[in-house]
Amino acid sequence: MGNTEFVIEPGRQDIFMIHVFDAPRDVVFRAVTDPELVPRWWGPRFLATRVDRMDARPGGRWRFVNIDAKGGEYGFRGVYHDVVAPELIVRTWEFEGTPGDVALETIRLEEVAGGGTRYVAQSVHPSVESRDAIVRADGAKGGRDSMERLAELLRSL
Amino acid sequence: MGNTEFVIEPGRQDIFMIHVFDAPRDVVFRAVTDPELVPRWWGPRFLATRVDRMDARPGGRWRFVNIDAKGGEYGFRGVYHDVVAPELIVRTWEFEGTPGDVALETIRLEEVAGGGTRYVAQSVHPSVESRDAIVRADGAKGGRDSMERLAELLRSL
Repeated sequence: MGNTEFVIEPGRQDIFMIHVFDAPRDVVFRAVTDPELVPRWWGPRFLATRVDRMDARPGGRWRFVNIDAKGGEYGFRGVYHDVVAPELIVRTWEFEGTPGDVALETIRLEEVAGGGTRYVAQSVHPSVESRDAIVRADGAKGGRDSMERLAELLRSL
Repeated sequence: MGNTEFVIEPGRQDIFMIHVFDAPRDVVFRAVTDPELVPRWWGPRFLATRVDRMDARPGGRWRFVNIDAKGGEYGFRGVYHDVVAPELIVRTWEFEGTPGDVALETIRLEEVAGGGTRYVAQSVHPSVESRDAIVRADGAKGGRDSMERLAELLRSL
């Protein structure tokens, strides 16, 4: 299964990222919520990922760090509002390089005919401008890499 | 000091609510983060408020309940992403009557000349439609009542 679809409408404050995986929903949910698995798929291919903290329950905190080839670190952090296995994750999301620009990310996992899972992530941003800055910084590339890497990981689980 | 100002632009996903209080910033911050004080100002005047839970720190959870004259209860809940005294609170916000419509609320407290405090709350919603539903349900009335009640409380602290 296929490509990652983005819906980024002019003037809105959100980004939708959608990918259909050829894997059961509970397996996709595990890959998204297991701190041991996240480094194997989260982030752009050219960066490593370290999970500093990931407590996937309401009120739990998370912090992921992307690491470049020279050892430079880029931190991301937030808190979980809801974690409902195997279908829903709602969490805040902040890149530490642009403090104060906090987004709300909702990930829904939907069963599709044939045994696959549709991953629908919506991130809502504080302004159209902060959303568009992420799009300009090629945030879609990071998302697409993550979805492709997750598909590869799911084939091995 | 004065009226509560709302900024609700067509087509956006957010609501700004702004009020200038005649009180120092640390006192306003305390009123907003102290679970003993919240029932004295939070919500519309015609409803009582009970604080079931309020742990104002990153990862802390909150749940407030509005209670009507017949004993009917209306719950609201979320988690804190950031709490930085005396200037910033970022938290998620969900009315339990419309589950899944999670908003992100950012409250900034700014010092103004003369010793007052500008309270600027932005709530960002998952869609224009869910934002507008809150506006239609007279959410601004609840916000305005809260700001006026908070001004009254601050005069007594």
